[in-house]
Amino acid sequence: MGLDTRVNCCPDGLVTDRKRRIKVLDCTIRDGGICNQWDFDPGFVRRVFEALVDAGIDYMEVGYKTQAGLYSRDDVGPWRFCDDSDLEGVVRPSPMKIATMVDIGRVQLADIPSVDDTAIDVIRIATYAHQMDQALELLDHCLEQGFETFMNVMAVSTLAPDDVDTFLLKLAGSGVHNVALVDSFGALYPYHVRYLVHKYMNYLGESIKVGVHFHNNQQQAFANSIAAIDEGVDFVDATLHGIGRAAGNCPLELLLFYLDNPKYNVRPILDLVEEFASMRDELRWGYHLPYAIAGFFNIHPRSAMDRMARADRYQVREMYETLLKR
Amino acid sequence: MGLDTRVNCCPDGLVTDRKRRIKVLDCTIRDGGICNQWDFDPGFVRRVFEALVDAGIDYMEVGYKTQAGLYSRDDVGPWRFCDDSDLEGVVRPSPMKIATMVDIGRVQLADIPSVDDTAIDVIRIATYAHQMDQALELLDHCLEQGFETFMNVMAVSTLAPDDVDTFLLKLAGSGVHNVALVDSFGALYPYHVRYLVHKYMNYLGESIKVGVHFHNNQQQAFANSIAAIDEGVDFVDATLHGIGRAAGNCPLELLLFYLDNPKYNVRPILDLVEEFASMRDELRWGYHLPYAIAGFFNIHPRSAMDRMARADRYQVREMYETLLKR
Repeated sequence: MGLDTRVNCCPDGLVTDRKRRIKVLDCTIRDGGICNQWDFDPGFVRRVFEALVDAGIDYMEVGYKTQAGLYSRDDVGPWRFCDDSDLEGVVRPSPMKIATMVDIGRVQLADIPSVDDTAIDVIRIATYAHQMDQALELLDHCLEQGFETFMNVMAVSTLAPDDVDTFLLKLAGSGVHNVALVDSFGALYPYHVRYLVHKYMNYLGESIKVGVHFHNNQQQAFANSIAAIDEGVDFVDATLHGIGRAAGNCPLELLLFYLDNPKYNVRPILDLVEEFASMRDELRWGYHLPYAIAGFFNIHPRSAMDRMARADRYQVREMYETLLKR
Repeated sequence: MGLDTRVNCCPDGLVTDRKRRIKVLDCTIRDGGICNQWDFDPGFVRRVFEALVDAGIDYMEVGYKTQAGLYSRDDVGPWRFCDDSDLEGVVRPSPMKIATMVDIGRVQLADIPSVDDTAIDVIRIATYAHQMDQALELLDHCLEQGFETFMNVMAVSTLAPDDVDTFLLKLAGSGVHNVALVDSFGALYPYHVRYLVHKYMNYLGESIKVGVHFHNNQQQAFANSIAAIDEGVDFVDATLHGIGRAAGNCPLELLLFYLDNPKYNVRPILDLVEEFASMRDELRWGYHLPYAIAGFFNIHPRSAMDRMARADRYQVREMYETLLKR
């Protein structure tokens, strides 16, 4: 057997089979919006939407739905709200489904309309494990309102194994459509991913899809996505040029190269990827030492982001020494 | 079994065993020198040397040895030559071995002194497969002169399988100490790496060490290093902040985090990693779309580097379309 890097180098065909069943969720505007308070121009978001449709992407997460009054529209852009008046003229009916995220504690049941009254197809609930009861109540409501409903349980890398088992058992019988393994802190290596993907798939059973949402603190977002694909996940999250909180996410362009599936086409997104490249210095995602150290120590990137906002030199040795002494 | 991200999450202990036997080769000045014509100040290189010694790194590749007269010292810095007069006052006897690279076609047998007359411990021969006869002649000479001698066979991703087998068979009986799997174009994914590492280990037998040298065009240099470690390689190449030709290499700091081995200490390199971060915008390594596309198409990064030197906007869509039509 030989290597042909461009055509077929997997001895047993398994990788090819596993690539074929993947669905891709783009969360450029939602997670990338954390970098600029969701201040993307509606015309720009429309161009992102059209490029993703042309590229064959399955789901676009266009922002958050948020409880009215929690943020002022003077402080944050429209993609923190995703009211249908915000989405009008930006998205249109297409084969690509429109998702919005909701944060437990930042949304009320009354904020979730009927699926018949909105351009949104999917609600994705972001929750910590300790908020699972609230998350399940919200899930029930979203399902009643007719939405395809996903659940992202954040910061799994900080949980004891029993706590992971506990929330997965609750979700297994919940009616949720998709549960994502979320590496909020960019702490996971591929062997963690393989272990957790097995656990998620085993506990959730065959009727619940498993997705992954990875952060790139240690240059592992794309690598961990590859490991998850090898292990058989159904969904992968990615963003244009990897934009996202702190170090960002798995770059969509790299994922599409890798999937090498004719149902996807990387060409329509390349101009936009280049536009995002031009924002990278200002918005500060990508590989930076404070993010890498926060990932290694398995902590929230908040302190790293603060450090980077304050100074050109980040004093990473002092950051490392302080964390080592915790 | 559960996940403990900071201590022990490998169910069968295999990953831990494999991490323990790894040796690390830092090629910051040699490969990073491609970004600035090896124009690092001797005092700076001495600080790199001391930091690497303090970090417990096994080998430092400090530059190239080059045939006299091939380059002018007005055009390129001292680490393109690595004469002992260049090394004096920069390196000193320590547990860390000093390596230099030689390129087939850019060095003569007469340029290789006796190991007794130099601070250099290791010669690493960089060759393409089609130059193997010259490389073997040079290898014989380096071994006669008393050097630990390594071989990097470049651009393996472009070779037909039989050609890989052929050069590996030649090397198996050659007396070489270490052969690196080299992803010159940043084209390999982990499944390529697993396949090739197996092939290299099987063909080269137990007495020849196997190393890896990866480029980061598709954010896979560190991920591919992890895959290679899983498969049992002996050596991994890395550089401070990943500096190296085009997208660069596996970042040493991330590798040391991952190896999590008390024989290594990341702390002494962190100030330097931050200094390298400050050079990144000017020297242009890291994640850039032209490099990613060159990696995907499995071509030399030369055209991508030219494109990036010419313009702020890289017209990556046009680059992609041109390569697609080849």
